[in-house]
Amino acid sequence: MTHSPTSPIESDAVVIGAGPVGLYMVFQLGLQGIHAHVLDVLAWPGGQPVELYGDKPIYDIPGLPACTGQVLADRLTEQAAPFNPSYHLGHMVSALAIQADGRYMLTTDKGLTLLAKTVFIAAGVGAFVPKKLPLPALTPFEGAQVFYHPPHTLDMAGCHVVVAGGDQAALDWALTAVAQQPTNGVQSVTLLHRRDVLQASAASLVHMSALCASGKLTFMVGQVMDAVPSATDPTALAGLSIACPNGQRVDLKADRLVVMQGISPKLGPLTAWGLDMVRKQLAVDTATFQTSQRGIFAVGDINTYPGKKKLLVCGFHECVLAAFGAAAYLFPDCNQPLEYTSSSSRLQQLLGVATTPPSA
Amino acid sequence: MTHSPTSPIESDAVVIGAGPVGLYMVFQLGLQGIHAHVLDVLAWPGGQPVELYGDKPIYDIPGLPACTGQVLADRLTEQAAPFNPSYHLGHMVSALAIQADGRYMLTTDKGLTLLAKTVFIAAGVGAFVPKKLPLPALTPFEGAQVFYHPPHTLDMAGCHVVVAGGDQAALDWALTAVAQQPTNGVQSVTLLHRRDVLQASAASLVHMSALCASGKLTFMVGQVMDAVPSATDPTALAGLSIACPNGQRVDLKADRLVVMQGISPKLGPLTAWGLDMVRKQLAVDTATFQTSQRGIFAVGDINTYPGKKKLLVCGFHECVLAAFGAAAYLFPDCNQPLEYTSSSSRLQQLLGVATTPPSA
Repeated sequence: MTHSPTSPIESDAVVIGAGPVGLYMVFQLGLQGIHAHVLDVLAWPGGQPVELYGDKPIYDIPGLPACTGQVLADRLTEQAAPFNPSYHLGHMVSALAIQADGRYMLTTDKGLTLLAKTVFIAAGVGAFVPKKLPLPALTPFEGAQVFYHPPHTLDMAGCHVVVAGGDQAALDWALTAVAQQPTNGVQSVTLLHRRDVLQASAASLVHMSALCASGKLTFMVGQVMDAVPSATDPTALAGLSIACPNGQRVDLKADRLVVMQGISPKLGPLTAWGLDMVRKQLAVDTATFQTSQRGIFAVGDINTYPGKKKLLVCGFHECVLAAFGAAAYLFPDCNQPLEYTSSSSRLQQLLGVATTPPSA
Repeated sequence: MTHSPTSPIESDAVVIGAGPVGLYMVFQLGLQGIHAHVLDVLAWPGGQPVELYGDKPIYDIPGLPACTGQVLADRLTEQAAPFNPSYHLGHMVSALAIQADGRYMLTTDKGLTLLAKTVFIAAGVGAFVPKKLPLPALTPFEGAQVFYHPPHTLDMAGCHVVVAGGDQAALDWALTAVAQQPTNGVQSVTLLHRRDVLQASAASLVHMSALCASGKLTFMVGQVMDAVPSATDPTALAGLSIACPNGQRVDLKADRLVVMQGISPKLGPLTAWGLDMVRKQLAVDTATFQTSQRGIFAVGDINTYPGKKKLLVCGFHECVLAAFGAAAYLFPDCNQPLEYTSSSSRLQQLLGVATTPPSA
């Protein structure tokens, strides 16, 4: 969606964070008849569970005895889908300012602006930002040849690929690149880490050893110190200057640098929005999960209150009460009674599952 | 399990109510290392969702876009299973009394006694008790030939079966009895209702019409007025005296009377336990979901607090905080930090899902 910077998107509700709690917030708002725009700094929905344990089972979601972070995110995305949320992924909210009419203007780092009557902060421990290599020389190549936590579908055809990192995600990325060698002509794959110890599963390490033995993968201990531009085209990256443990510097061919040094959560600008905080958490009223600012609600790991536990099941409950709180705030004259999705034809209409009686 | 009435079962925790919230309470207690005994007046786990909408989808459980009450109960039972809860089904708690040592003595209507350090009231809108026919003449046959909301596995071999009731559950029961005719020699099946209108799905009504047309099922409008004992054995029920709409009385052969007149929730004795109540709900502290009595917690539809919504997802959250509250009460010196089932080997050991690293 393109949008003029002078004309913000107007909305009843903006949800900041597309993790499990943000997705369920969208669903609960939908049941209240409130359409939501959803922002997340990551390029996909699912947030921390997908990023940190996408393929690890979670055992404590009620009714899901075992469910990976990815499956949970997929199920919650599916559950929210009937309400047609507008996703704006890859956006970090950089500013939030109250307007004269009581609405909130949100601005993202990509220049998107939204004007919202209610805001739901479901930002978990903050925006997940990949840790960057502290090398200004790499900056010009970012997005073209240097990538931080890219998707595995990144085009590597014909490239010398260097993956920098020492955890399972880094090794997985290197293994993906090797697996693509026969089909897209990847020329070489090097896994580069500052130490000789990798944090990865035994099975992956065995797999890696075999690939190294057959020359399909190179494991190298060292640190990126500088970029080596192409001799013929200084705007293109041709290699990396690596500091080795023995003090030597070596040049390594690289047309693709994939940096997998982990991601770190950043509370970022929201600490500057004037909301009451208690030890870096947003203080909320447990009847509505409204923050100290009317119309701004906080759900999930970002909030705090007496007894708070940072568990998804608690965040889900908070979404319910926040949605009712928002409905009362948006539609003060409409005192909607509690209805059940299993029996309310109004809710079933909203969900798109209303059934007509079977014909005789 | 048989137990001497003079020797109560000693337990750290007793959960009253085996509905979804009670089952998840058991699970959350298990994660805290607390074993639970579970009591329910119904003969099976699942409570209200199974009883009222066992085959109707519920759409608002997080991560379960559509899930029947029965499937949800099955999943929650499976989720609690690793903690080996002790179920005592078909029991209604009739008394609760604090002991000199601070523990609670619970007594059920079947004479079971339990001595518990903590009690979790997850009783929903109360104990589900089948509505009875107000006919003392039927009482002597109860449990032998007269049944209130029995399981569909009830032995009807060779019987004249009368099902009294006008809703889907009553019709389903009559259809089950007809379906068994070829294999167990049910002699006749009559569906008896006080009005000519049934509250059931169109498909079931069409099915019923066909069975009535072929003589396999009889639908009769009328009310049971008296029992007709057997002429040869006065302790056996042989028939029922029915008042018809035209004022006539007719005798109907019946060796089995199945009464499906609905169930009604009864708060019953818990109103006499001295716990603070607000409009028939138990008042709780939202940090721990403890009632006004220390060691007694209330979760789910039975409790109230500012913002309370009677939804399962809210009850599930309440279980989490109640389990932490109970752990702090039972083990005051053990300040267990919050751990995650996806990463904590301690919790995975408790769940029986701990994995050893894959071998090389």
